[in-house]
Parts: sequence; C-alpha cells; structure tokens
Amino acid sequence: MKWWGWGDADHEAAIPEPALAALRAELGAGDRRVPLPALEDIVLPETALKKKARGRLARAAGEAWVKDERFERVTHSAGKSYPDLLKMRSGTLEHAPDAVVYPGDAGQVRQVLEACADERVAVVPFGGGTSVVGGVEPLREGHDAVISLDLGRIAHVRDVDTHSLTAVLGAGLRGPAVEAALGAQGLTLGHYPQSWEFATVGGWVATRSAGQASTGYGAIDKLVSGLRCVAPRGEVELAAVPATAAGPGLRQLLIGSEGLFGVITEATLKVRPAPATQRYEGWMFHSFEEGAEAFRALEQGHVIPDVARLSDPDETRLSMTLSDDGSLPRRLGQRYIGARGYEGGCIAILGFEGERTDAESRRARAGRVLRRAGGLPLGAGPGRAWHRGRFAGPYLRDALLDRGVMAETLETAAPWSGLMRLYRAVGDALRTALADRGTPGLVMCHVSHLYPDGASLYYTFIAPQQEGREMEQWWAVKSAACDAIVSTGGTITHHHAIGRDHAPWMPREIGRTGVDALRGVKKRLDPAGILNPGKVLP
Amino acid sequence: MKWWGWGDADHEAAIPEPALAALRAELGAGDRRVPLPALEDIVLPETALKKKARGRLARAAGEAWVKDERFERVTHSAGKSYPDLLKMRSGTLEHAPDAVVYPGDAGQVRQVLEACADERVAVVPFGGGTSVVGGVEPLREGHDAVISLDLGRIAHVRDVDTHSLTAVLGAGLRGPAVEAALGAQGLTLGHYPQSWEFATVGGWVATRSAGQASTGYGAIDKLVSGLRCVAPRGEVELAAVPATAAGPGLRQLLIGSEGLFGVITEATLKVRPAPATQRYEGWMFHSFEEGAEAFRALEQGHVIPDVARLSDPDETRLSMTLSDDGSLPRRLGQRYIGARGYEGGCIAILGFEGERTDAESRRARAGRVLRRAGGLPLGAGPGRAWHRGRFAGPYLRDALLDRGVMAETLETAAPWSGLMRLYRAVGDALRTALADRGTPGLVMCHVSHLYPDGASLYYTFIAPQQEGREMEQWWAVKSAACDAIVSTGGTITHHHAIGRDHAPWMPREIGRTGVDALRGVKKRLDPAGILNPGKVLP
Repeated sequence: MKWWGWGDADHEAAIPEPALAALRAELGAGDRRVPLPALEDIVLPETALKKKARGRLARAAGEAWVKDERFERVTHSAGKSYPDLLKMRSGTLEHAPDAVVYPGDAGQVRQVLEACADERVAVVPFGGGTSVVGGVEPLREGHDAVISLDLGRIAHVRDVDTHSLTAVLGAGLRGPAVEAALGAQGLTLGHYPQSWEFATVGGWVATRSAGQASTGYGAIDKLVSGLRCVAPRGEVELAAVPATAAGPGLRQLLIGSEGLFGVITEATLKVRPAPATQRYEGWMFHSFEEGAEAFRALEQGHVIPDVARLSDPDETRLSMTLSDDGSLPRRLGQRYIGARGYEGGCIAILGFEGERTDAESRRARAGRVLRRAGGLPLGAGPGRAWHRGRFAGPYLRDALLDRGVMAETLETAAPWSGLMRLYRAVGDALRTALADRGTPGLVMCHVSHLYPDGASLYYTFIAPQQEGREMEQWWAVKSAACDAIVSTGGTITHHHAIGRDHAPWMPREIGRTGVDALRGVKKRLDPAGILNPGKVLP
Repeated sequence: MKWWGWGDADHEAAIPEPALAALRAELGAGDRRVPLPALEDIVLPETALKKKARGRLARAAGEAWVKDERFERVTHSAGKSYPDLLKMRSGTLEHAPDAVVYPGDAGQVRQVLEACADERVAVVPFGGGTSVVGGVEPLREGHDAVISLDLGRIAHVRDVDTHSLTAVLGAGLRGPAVEAALGAQGLTLGHYPQSWEFATVGGWVATRSAGQASTGYGAIDKLVSGLRCVAPRGEVELAAVPATAAGPGLRQLLIGSEGLFGVITEATLKVRPAPATQRYEGWMFHSFEEGAEAFRALEQGHVIPDVARLSDPDETRLSMTLSDDGSLPRRLGQRYIGARGYEGGCIAILGFEGERTDAESRRARAGRVLRRAGGLPLGAGPGRAWHRGRFAGPYLRDALLDRGVMAETLETAAPWSGLMRLYRAVGDALRTALADRGTPGLVMCHVSHLYPDGASLYYTFIAPQQEGREMEQWWAVKSAACDAIVSTGGTITHHHAIGRDHAPWMPREIGRTGVDALRGVKKRLDPAGILNPGKVLP
C-alpha cells in the first residue's frame, strides 16, 4: 500500500471527466494541484525505543522482525482516514511508531506484550492499517515509546470445517487471502468492507466491521463463534460454540475492543458455501423515504437481500453523472426513468447471492415487494456497475486530495422510525458546517445494512479544502455531524469503529458508567495501560 | 406460584397412568410417597436486617414494599431447580432473604442499591424466580444481611413502535403480560421458554434466555436492541439502535450478567407481527444422527423453522408411551411408523409461524429437505400435542418428586461436527453417574435451537431418588455431566445460565483471564460486591 494513500502506487485512479466537470460546476473546485512530499523528506519524531526494550522485542519476535526503517515507521504511523492522509501529505508526522514488530504467533505476541509492559512501551495492534477513525495512530500517551504490532505474519487458515461451516483464521489474513483459502474449499466468508483488499481478519473483529453484503451475511459480530485474544495479563480463549448462556457476553466484549484489552490473534468465523449465483440489480424510487420504506418492507417481511443500498437524490444524481458515457443505451435508460416519473428520484442496488434456487426465490419475492412499494426495476446494468466499482472509493479519494478537494465519509444507524429525521439532521449539520467554513460542499447519503428494527446511513461529502486550515475544517465538519448524530438518536458509528476520532462521543453513546465498565476490563487485562492508549475511551 | 414447586397450587399435575407404569417397569420407582412440610413448619434463618438498613429500604421503596413475612421470605429463598425443590421440601432453608423489597421504578432501584452498599446488605435481583441454576439463591457471602429485590412492580410497556417493530418493556413483566400487551397491538415477542408463564423480561435478559421458538425468532440476546441497567455506581443506559460499532459490546456484556453488574430495569426488545398462522407438525427419522443431519440441512440451506426439536430414541419412546391412549388412530399411527421402517426411530417437531405465505413457503421447502434427508411426515397431530403440553414439564416434575423420583434437565450446545460425540459423552456420563449411585436412570435428549454452525442438546433424566442423600446424588450426577460437557467441546449452558450451580465450570468456559475481565467490570460497577454474591464467578 502506498504510504500517502490507498492501494498500490501503480493503481492510478484518475477522476473521470464528467466528475471533474461536476466538481468545477458545483463546488468551484478540482483545479488546484497539491504536491506530495517525498518519503525521504517526511519529518519523523526521533526513535525513543531504548536499547534494552529493543533487545527484548528482538528476543520475542526475532531480530529480523523488529523494524525501524523509515518506510516501516511511516506506513505504520497512521490509518487511512481523511485526517490521516492530510498528516501524511503535510510532510511532518507528529506521531510514528518507534519500531514495527511482526510477531509470528500468539506466543510471540504474549512475549512482546510482557516486554512492553515491563519497559513502559505502548503497543498499537496493526492489521491492514485501514482504520478511518484514527484507530492505529501510534500515541505514546505517557509511555517511554510506542511500537506498532503488525499482525501480518499471523495468517494461518486452520480447521476449515465444511460440516459446521466454520474456519479458524489468523488475525493477519487480508480479505483476498481469506477468500482464496476458503474458495479453494468451495466456501466464502462473504465479508466485503470497502477496505477488503487490505483489511484483515483481526482488524474486522477488533472494529466490529460490516461489509457490503452484511445485510445478508451478517456483520463480523454475527460471524464470530470463537476467538483468541492475548492480553498483557493472560490469554482469553473462547471456544467456537454456536450459542451460549454462560454469563456476560465476553465474545461480544472482545469484538470491537479495538486493541484496548488485548490482541486478537485468531477467530473462528462462520462461513458459507461459495455463492453459485450473484445477481445485482438496480431499482429506482420516487424519493428516499419511499425507498427506505421499501427496504423496511423487505426486512420485516423476511425477504432479505444480501446487498441493499439506497442512494439519496444527491448521491443518485452524482452517480448517474459519473457513469454517463453519453451512449445510446444510457440515454434510453434516462428517458425511461424520466418517462415513468422517477426523475430526481433515488437509485437502489439490490444483490442476491448464494445457492441458485434460494437466491432466485428471494430475488423474485423482493421484486414483488419493491414494486408494490413504488419501485421501478432498472435491470442488471446498474448492479453490475456498482459491483465493478465497489472498492473504488478510497482510490478516488486520493485523486481528489491531489486536487485540493476534501472527501470524507461517516456512518450511523438508527431505528426505522427515526431514520429520516436522522438523515436530515446529519445532512443539515454537514451542509451548514461546510458552508460556515466558506466551503459549501456536496453531501450525499445512502441507506445500507438493513435490520428488522432499523438501518444504517452512510454519508459521503466533498468540498473544496480550506487551504492551510484543512485539519481545522475537517474537525469542524466532523464534530458537527457527530453532535447531530448523538442528539438525534443515531449511534456514533455503525461500522467504522471508535478509534481516536469518535472517542469524545463515547460518554454520550454508552454513558459514563458504561465507559467506567470498560475501564474496569482494561485495568484487569492491561494494568499498565500499554495497549492502544488514547483510543476509544475518552 | 406455590412455594414448594411449580405453578399454582390448584394446578394438579397427575402422572399419567402409562407413565407410572413405565416408571415402575423401567426404574422400579414411583410408588414411594414423599411428604411435604407445611409452610409454617419451614425452618428459616433469623432475619439479620438491622433496623437502620430496613429504615433506609423503606424510605427507598416505601414501607409497604419491604416485606419480611414468612411467605415472602420462603418464596424468595430459591429458584426452581431440582436442588432448590429438594431444599424446600427438606423443611429447613439454610438461606432466605432477610427481606423482600419491591422497588417501583429505576430510581427506587438506585436508592435501594445505595442503601444496601452503605449498610453492607447483599442484593439478589428476582424476576419470576424460575432460575434452575441457583441464580436467585440469597447468599450473604460475608455481608451483614441479604435482600431479594423483586422487580414485579416494574412492569411498564412503553413506546411500542409498530414501524421499527420494537417495544420498551419493564423488567418485571411476565410472559403472558408481555404477549397480552403486544397482542393488543397485533404484535408478539415470540419468546417462549418453558418457564414462560412465570419468567420475566428482566430475567430473560439477565440470563440469556432462549425460548422454544428461538430457532426462528432468535434467543433474547438477538432480541435486545437497548436496555437500562442500574448499578450501585450508576446507570448504564444503552439506546435502542439496530447495530453499532461503538467499541466493545456493552449490550451483550449486560445480557447474561445475572445481576452481577447491575439490575436490568427495562429492555427495548424487537417484536414481530403476531403470527397469522402457526403450523406444528411431526416427523420421524431412522436415527438421531439422521435427524440431526436433516436439521443441519435446513439451517445451512436457509430454510429456518421457528421451532425445531428432535428427540433421541429414548425420549421418543417415552413421549410415545406417555401419549398412548390406546385409540385406533394412535394404533394406526404406530403401525404406519413400523411399516415404513421407522420403529425405534426419532421423532421431530417442526413449527412454522408468522405471515401465512412466508410460513407456508418455509414449511413446504422444509418438507422437501426433510424428506430428502430420510424423514417421514407424521402430520399435525404430534405437533399439536407438543404445542399443547409445551409448558407442562415443570408441573410434572413436582408430581415425580412427590413420588421419590429425581427429574432434572440440563443443556449445552456445540458445533455440528462435534454434536454427536457430545451427545454420547454427556449421555454416558449421566447414565454412568446414576448407575454408580445405585440408581440407574432414564436419560433422554433432544436437539433444539438450530444455528448454521451447530445446535443445542437438551437432556432430561429421571431416576429413583437416593433417599436421605438426594442432594449428594444430584451433585454427583450433575458434576459428571458438566465435566463431560466441558471436556467434549460443549458450552456449559445454552440457555439456563450460570447461577451458582455452573460457576465452578466458568474458568473452563471462558478461562481465568476471562473471569478476571468480568471481575474488572464488577469491581467498577459494584465496588462493594453487594450484587448477587456467590454467583457466576467462582
């Protein structure tokens, strides 16, 4: 992964011409060129790791697996949030790990943690480094040094159980490796966050990840049946059982623990037969409300799609602009939408996959529900287009940053009865905050991740950067959105996790007593407080 | 509820004649008559509640709601486990609450907890008092006194949201009150543990309850979207959201917390439209293995019944004996089963309920899967019979105890690939332990609660009591089963919870570090350790 952005440096994501035109027309932006610093010019803090501590780490993980070269330190100094990228591009990193340690197994993790507890070294577990909430930022927070604990070497695939449909996966496995290993046995995990190409099993579990098909497959918290988590004070190993009433839910306490209590080294995850069929299709609705009601009817009627996304009018308009190639089929499509009275409406993508009969049956039943709810079928074209571009977002963001354009996302979830109020409140907060900075922006939203009792909302916003005050601009807008979320009945995050950025809102989310309960766990498992300090708990 | 057993004293559960005959023939038991002590003869410990403490409790909940009459103390001195009933029938209660306090709302709960923390009084939250694992036993464990905190007055139904399909229910609501309130709005919770008539919302949440229809509706941990829990150190209020990635799973940590961390005063639960149709039917399989494989095919093929139970050969045989009325249809039925080669096989009950088309479609698809897997349809008769008698078990147990017969149940869960090994190991352990005591018994089992990755096993065993050594006999057999469970990959409990009886196995279940993590939460929320001491944590 390139240190200043997303993906391989060879993967050139150019902004399509229609998008550039829209940027110019709508935001007066896109023509600035922002230079990138060179890796060798990046200013890093001095390495603070003492010789003795370094020696113990080398004994724990092996000399070759304690790295402090510039490239390692830079690539482990941040995740991939918008402010992370701003910091990278600024040329000066306030925080960087003093070393990056690559343990080979759970036993080595334990030894590393023991060494760090003794030597007052903070430890930041690092999976794919794709956090967008500051979750892997190497903060020392009073410790003498900080290391990044890269779990990339713990990448085993064990006990693939085709009878129980579970597999034991090492924390460091990335999405493609997971699917390759399972695919070889005719299975799939079906977990596809936008970061799938780079994100890891351990990161998914530690951040309560949801993927694009989680409406059908379930988010990661539904997929974990067992796990191992190494804490400074010992290991928690929870056997894979389908369900248990054995006291407080420790599995779920560790899921989403973001490296606060321990290092997740492996998880037993529920898998499925690889889908024999994958059908993605587009639908139009007259309005966001109408589409959301159609989605609610699906979920509550037990006709569950695997993928379900509903774009609001602005996201619909932009996605249509971006994909407009001026071709005849395209013009006919637009005429069809207009003629049926859906112009200015909202596009939805529905995906059905799995065993053929089951997927087709759900698709047919869903079609009836959606039509009855006011939907207009658009066929497979939009579905295919979405599927093709489903990991493209972060690549495009780099290209926008190159042109002085802020591009950021955030997400929440709420019960159906409060969803539209939340939708408007957060959108208004974003638009107002952007305008207040003198940089009016484009705010888009889609519904995704359906549940019987509610759904998630995912916002994307784009605005000209406030040159020289980019970070301040970001925080003003981000805070405004977060305040709107917590005061309108939404959760502060549906699947991006807490990290550093959302920590100030945790007391609103779970209350002071809730925060205190988590501190109690932390104190027992990590009494020296070395694990991921400065995250989650305010 | 009668103090010495289950249900109303007027509800006379006589053992059917064929069952008595079977008891005599198979176990040489059933003819002893065990006398019951009178309520006024029960020996109770002296009330240890000091005047000052009692005064504070009266100020907190109201003078009328602090009760220490014999009836109140006796009925709150135990749950409804087999050893609980033995103790009741022994005429001497080693433990009884020094008073029973009935708070009227969460504010009063808080005041009661504050008073108890100050006055060194232990507090045992009490819902329906139906625990079968010693969960409500009033242990002082070093405190000056102990009260039972009966939540029966906290029985509100609020914010029934027909749009999001959720309702806010007070902890003290019992099953029938829940269904009456929701039914009036065309809704159901669909949560039917065998204790449904008496068990409460708070108890369900605090013990991770599963009901008979939880294969379809989901156990209570799947139904909670928000909750309020009052701890001595403050209140945790978690808003109702459909999903969240806001850090460690605090909701699930409080679900199953068994009064250890705080008192659950209300929960927002997911509800459904009241079922328009309910279809229960019987199936026969040649063997337990064949039936279990059929159930696995259903779950993994996404054809989910709401109720699914598969009895092993012994349970099948006993249930057929019990229901044998000698009638012609009955004899024809048996001939049909025999002629098709299913004699000595296993009966299954499948239930499909909900919206008519959906339920019928699932039923039809399930029928195809079950036939293909070797099943023989028996029609609606066995389904109706099961549905009629689904809350009868505990009533019958009283009648067995009256006749000197031990009747006990326990349950576990495991992945599909280990299920049959676990089935045999626990059955063998039970049979051996019973025989070792000189009281060979009848051990029966059924599969229930299906998941994609596994299922639960529910054991019932019946044996002649070892007169004068009943408790020792019970513990020997119970321990043997628990040891077999934890050493064969099962969870120590699928839905009965931990309480006092399973606490010794918690370190095996979640490890010492896991236990320590829970202690950390306990220490923060309940620093004086007044809440339900002696439970869950060994």
